[in-house]
Amino acid sequence: MPSVDNFEIRETPVRNLEDGEVLRKTVYLSLDPYIRRLLSTEESRWSPMPLNATVGGDTVSRIVASRHSDFSEGEYVLCGDGWQEYGISDGGGLNKIDPDLNPKSLAIGAMGMPGRTAYGALLDIGQPKPGETVVVSAAAGAIGSLAGQIAKIKGCRVVGIVGSDEKCQVVTKELGFDACVNYKTAKLSAALKEVCPEGIDVYYDNVAGTVLEAVLDNIRGGARIALVGLISQYNANGRPAGPNLEPLLANAATIKGYHGVPSKTLENFQHDMGKWIAEGKIKVLEHVVTGLENTPKAFIGLFTGENIGKLLVHIPD
Amino acid sequence: MPSVDNFEIRETPVRNLEDGEVLRKTVYLSLDPYIRRLLSTEESRWSPMPLNATVGGDTVSRIVASRHSDFSEGEYVLCGDGWQEYGISDGGGLNKIDPDLNPKSLAIGAMGMPGRTAYGALLDIGQPKPGETVVVSAAAGAIGSLAGQIAKIKGCRVVGIVGSDEKCQVVTKELGFDACVNYKTAKLSAALKEVCPEGIDVYYDNVAGTVLEAVLDNIRGGARIALVGLISQYNANGRPAGPNLEPLLANAATIKGYHGVPSKTLENFQHDMGKWIAEGKIKVLEHVVTGLENTPKAFIGLFTGENIGKLLVHIPD
Repeated sequence: MPSVDNFEIRETPVRNLEDGEVLRKTVYLSLDPYIRRLLSTEESRWSPMPLNATVGGDTVSRIVASRHSDFSEGEYVLCGDGWQEYGISDGGGLNKIDPDLNPKSLAIGAMGMPGRTAYGALLDIGQPKPGETVVVSAAAGAIGSLAGQIAKIKGCRVVGIVGSDEKCQVVTKELGFDACVNYKTAKLSAALKEVCPEGIDVYYDNVAGTVLEAVLDNIRGGARIALVGLISQYNANGRPAGPNLEPLLANAATIKGYHGVPSKTLENFQHDMGKWIAEGKIKVLEHVVTGLENTPKAFIGLFTGENIGKLLVHIPD
Repeated sequence: MPSVDNFEIRETPVRNLEDGEVLRKTVYLSLDPYIRRLLSTEESRWSPMPLNATVGGDTVSRIVASRHSDFSEGEYVLCGDGWQEYGISDGGGLNKIDPDLNPKSLAIGAMGMPGRTAYGALLDIGQPKPGETVVVSAAAGAIGSLAGQIAKIKGCRVVGIVGSDEKCQVVTKELGFDACVNYKTAKLSAALKEVCPEGIDVYYDNVAGTVLEAVLDNIRGGARIALVGLISQYNANGRPAGPNLEPLLANAATIKGYHGVPSKTLENFQHDMGKWIAEGKIKVLEHVVTGLENTPKAFIGLFTGENIGKLLVHIPD
């Protein structure tokens, strides 16, 4: 588990712009669990971030000065510069955000990576059919909260797994899930059996580990499991064991890792998600922390269950 | 691990036939690893066999007396009566074997369940493409030896995993695999990296456990893993942990359990397998033990690596 001592804030002067450059200021910084996996020297398929470098991550930024013909002061851009307040760019790595998008934070939330991941992995791997039972872990998180709501829109019965009773309330009362289980207080396998008496058809997994094992106890024939995150083990030393896979055999079930974006699945993502949010069919939950200096603490909170919804750091002017 | 003391041979008289019944005699008894899973009181998705009952299993049997109009003395039938020499049936559960099939043992081998499992799981889940690298565990076993040869026919580079150097020789020299690794003497993950430098596209898994984990270290993007057997853990107490699933994420890889027979995939099974055997493209390896009394010892040998190819008990007249 990281601690705030592992991070350090450094102030350096912002140099003057040259021709063809812009100065951007971070307005919202996205904090996502997968970043933890990169802050590690453990052998991994992901390239670790170098020590003493700026921690990476997506931001919503505003152009505050421009000597670049494509960018004007006041425009908003999506950027991957990570945990810093200002950055200079020649335009590379900046993607303009639709001026009509409101709030702009949606660009790194429901309309951005978390939304695409929720939509893409659920529809591509989960393939939920009306009437099926869909279980979502980290159901109050940025991705899980969206995946569950999309499954509801697709006509499924949706059950969340979360780590607090408060989150259970949010997931069932505000997001419209049919049921929710607090894995910290319930015997998860038995609790799932109770709320999913006919078994689980689709599991949207953000956490892996023992939660996945409890779900496997309760899958139905032909179940599809989208393995999207491994939050339960991002802070582990070495590589923890996985779940016993026997239930896959008996149920001809599938586990598939989600990595990247199958473009065909996402053809309609912007349209669908925009419409669902506009119609109120999808509620977007944001957990906003203010001030760059609070970023490390907020990031650690991702692994101790502090946030409900998308965790953002807002850096005021 | 079972021992021969766990089994007992009982002799009971064979009663006279009534009208509409046949008496069958077991000629070949099929011994398969999955039967071990049924000889257990561990909670499982499979129904355990009752204590003190006859152990189940497929047989090739000959009709030795008939008072049933559909069956004649001398005909061969496929039957699921298990570990016994004679059985009486009203015809239910008996399936006639093609009189032209030679040898008749193929009905419980390459042309029967093991063949269908090799063919069905490889083609349905593995979806091997020419030039891809396919790894097969328990590659000298009844199913693995067939799965690997089918993958060769499909134009793949095929690597076996086995438990002895003798099996390595058989798999590469007799069955035409491109390479083979002895997991008992090699450091498996590193050895696979050496023989599959570009990674593994398809894994046909009969064993699960640490072998699966070593394969996961070496999968390529989009890899497909057919989970067909769990030999490594059929004798375990409780439910052992599974492999760490992180490589699935990084590679958008799939693990799917094989259970039963997707009929579309098997449309051409009888035709294809019969042709491949006739043309010598598939070599059928059989390991024949003689005498019902040797069945328990032979069965235990499945888990200590005694057999090369399909393990059969032949009961002479």
